[in-house]
Amino acid sequence: MATLPAHRTTDAEAAVAALRARFGAALQSGQAIRQQHGAQEGMAGGSLPDAVLFATGTGDVADAVAICAAHRFPVIAHGAGTSLEGQLCAVRGGLSLDLTGMNRVLEVNAADLDVRVEAGVTREALNAELRAQGLFFPLDPGANATLGGMAATRASGTNAVRYGTMREVTLGLTVVTAAGEVIRTGTRARKSAAGYDLTRLFVGSEGTLGIITELSLRVFGIPEQIASAVVQFERLEEAVGAVMLTMQMGLPVARIELLDPLQMDACIRYSKLEGFEVKPTLFLEFHGSAAGVAEQAEAFRAVASEFGGGTLTFATLTEDRNRLWKARHSAWFAAKALRPGAEAFATDACVPISRLADAIAEARAEAEAAGLIAPIVGHVGDGNFHMLLLFDPASHEERARAEALSARIADIAIRMGGTATGEHGIGLHKLSTMETEHGAGALAVMASLKRALDPLDILNPGKTVPLSSQAPGH
Amino acid sequence: MATLPAHRTTDAEAAVAALRARFGAALQSGQAIRQQHGAQEGMAGGSLPDAVLFATGTGDVADAVAICAAHRFPVIAHGAGTSLEGQLCAVRGGLSLDLTGMNRVLEVNAADLDVRVEAGVTREALNAELRAQGLFFPLDPGANATLGGMAATRASGTNAVRYGTMREVTLGLTVVTAAGEVIRTGTRARKSAAGYDLTRLFVGSEGTLGIITELSLRVFGIPEQIASAVVQFERLEEAVGAVMLTMQMGLPVARIELLDPLQMDACIRYSKLEGFEVKPTLFLEFHGSAAGVAEQAEAFRAVASEFGGGTLTFATLTEDRNRLWKARHSAWFAAKALRPGAEAFATDACVPISRLADAIAEARAEAEAAGLIAPIVGHVGDGNFHMLLLFDPASHEERARAEALSARIADIAIRMGGTATGEHGIGLHKLSTMETEHGAGALAVMASLKRALDPLDILNPGKTVPLSSQAPGH
Repeated sequence: MATLPAHRTTDAEAAVAALRARFGAALQSGQAIRQQHGAQEGMAGGSLPDAVLFATGTGDVADAVAICAAHRFPVIAHGAGTSLEGQLCAVRGGLSLDLTGMNRVLEVNAADLDVRVEAGVTREALNAELRAQGLFFPLDPGANATLGGMAATRASGTNAVRYGTMREVTLGLTVVTAAGEVIRTGTRARKSAAGYDLTRLFVGSEGTLGIITELSLRVFGIPEQIASAVVQFERLEEAVGAVMLTMQMGLPVARIELLDPLQMDACIRYSKLEGFEVKPTLFLEFHGSAAGVAEQAEAFRAVASEFGGGTLTFATLTEDRNRLWKARHSAWFAAKALRPGAEAFATDACVPISRLADAIAEARAEAEAAGLIAPIVGHVGDGNFHMLLLFDPASHEERARAEALSARIADIAIRMGGTATGEHGIGLHKLSTMETEHGAGALAVMASLKRALDPLDILNPGKTVPLSSQAPGH
Repeated sequence: MATLPAHRTTDAEAAVAALRARFGAALQSGQAIRQQHGAQEGMAGGSLPDAVLFATGTGDVADAVAICAAHRFPVIAHGAGTSLEGQLCAVRGGLSLDLTGMNRVLEVNAADLDVRVEAGVTREALNAELRAQGLFFPLDPGANATLGGMAATRASGTNAVRYGTMREVTLGLTVVTAAGEVIRTGTRARKSAAGYDLTRLFVGSEGTLGIITELSLRVFGIPEQIASAVVQFERLEEAVGAVMLTMQMGLPVARIELLDPLQMDACIRYSKLEGFEVKPTLFLEFHGSAAGVAEQAEAFRAVASEFGGGTLTFATLTEDRNRLWKARHSAWFAAKALRPGAEAFATDACVPISRLADAIAEARAEAEAAGLIAPIVGHVGDGNFHMLLLFDPASHEERARAEALSARIADIAIRMGGTATGEHGIGLHKLSTMETEHGAGALAVMASLKRALDPLDILNPGKTVPLSSQAPGH
């Protein structure tokens, strides 16, 4: 395959004309639609695509990519648009390929606990479809993301501590390559040793190696018993200590989420949570048989008490549990309400569990030094926590301070043997962390994979792997 | 990177001389040593390497690969030598890189439930080291394989149904690239969304993309309670039916292994198992708290009884459990003893659980039509079963019949949405299944990855991805 310069050599108008000739009204280029597909939460001045295609199936995607390849025109897959690291900014223009119309659940294989879906199905839509059969799909990034987008960013959420991330639950994919060819990866078998693991190469590649159009996913039986619980602590270190011991004991909690006092204050006000104090707080969930849940809860109660935790407040009714987790999933909006008019982005450090208390303490110290409002919320069972950095979008200085703080927190995580991003991905916004985290050698390997699978650099160019690593001849 | 013809253009003598100049007595080229490193169980006339290097560390591996690259000399990583699909046959000669001397456990991080080991540490050696800390590493291919070899072949074993395969338990790797550079993949964090998943690209790549020299692996706390159990059925379909329902219920069994009557007969005789009949049999293991194990066992007892299973015989004493699992791990040798002098290879079909009964029934019918002695044993909770095909190594006709049967069983699995190999890998022996399983498009993507990471085709050439797919200019 030929290696071409990374710079844009295409004629956007010719590309858009060719796409319009094939797709007619499904191709749109109005300012509002382009704006909607290029601007991203927290990202400075998002770059807009030249046009947006509303795809209706894998065939559309293959045709569109083939046309883009012929014109060396960038193409950016687009789901619910809820990614957080600038994955959708069209830094060199191009086509935004909107997959939300590809929203069919193609198969539910209850006997095998797997499903096949189009990439535009959202996690909530899938769960609505599964519920009647006693099944559920556990992964829940805060937003109602599409499953294609979740695979592309290797998303996880509150249940990952028990059920794994998109890396673990994705069995296979249908992918359109950079040449516009349709390939399938993986099988419906639970394991395979047959060749290179293409499924997990595309999961997390943010649309830079291929475009995911269909997914086979594991699903799970709804547990016989589900109990949510809340426990509050006097000091943050105590809450974190309880989490660390819980994980080290191997207690199979389904969810264990930390909210620091500032975040708890925001959630109490925003979601009108009653009966809680402004203190470091853990939200938990236990899944299993009735006896199993009781046993887990009792074991956790002993741990929490050892760390000075207050009474464990249980919610077992679906309605009560939903209110609790809705508050957790609204944490982002609750935090933003702490400073009306502010923009925000979230750090995403993830560390070995033994370093969690140190990592959070260092991050808090950095935030205090930076003087920013920065509540903490996190999937702490995985060692993953988010600090939401609020800043005035009109102030370049404040944004720069937030960016610098974000970079320092990434460095802290990497230094502790962890990662700059547990679940939000790299996109544009974390490109600068890649060499620190992976080293120049591994990054060069990633760049050679990008060149091998996308030699014209048309698939979401400029994302995931820094452009400098993609320089020909490296 | 340049693309070169796949054929050997090297001067083996010059390459060996250069290696000898660097490594002295650690490089050996005696016939016996070469024979030991090139001949493989069940493989016809294994091809021998030109020399064997006993590496003592990652630096040795990097230097050796750099010398091999300079001479375009093949290099084949070698662990315990227990792979089953011809992964170690030196089809174009070259250097066998023996990593068994790299056998240090570098770190045990009990608080994070992870370890760092050199590639030559065996699973039994790791477990011996972990036991005193109350930890264990669950994956157990039958042989006492090295952990580097297990990662390279994406191995699993009897516990994978509960703990996952090498795909799930490998956190990160140190890898020597085809250019002799040392890179690190992954972190010690439990999850990450930072770029391409190099760890899982190297896991299962059989030494064709890079050479694994160190691994970070998840380990687990030894469960509070472990109970093994055996239950026998009148008919194979009933035993399989019980497995399917167990998995569909989501019962978290740690092991659930099937032995058909022929394999059970072999094991009773070979391992002097007492108190069992020659019937379809399940060996199980339950891990958890005392109450949890009792609950799982009771739930399974109800399932087994529904399918006409006999009494559940428990073994909770370590000694009794060990005898049972030693018999299971000796199944290969027990089966070979059914026909003294015979050679054998194992099929490795893995299917969605709902198709397991059909797959086994079709495989048995094919084996009967082929007139071969072919006991069945399998990790049936994963949908994975092995048929051990015994044949007279002196009879070309019998070997050909066994090969044809093996190919038909692979086809059955693939047709049912499964894979030709659940855990043994591709090597040389299953190359012909790759296009059927993955399709030409996905296979071409794998070939382009191979070309990108190993442009000189020196890393275990001729394995994993069929050479025809690696032709330049694809």
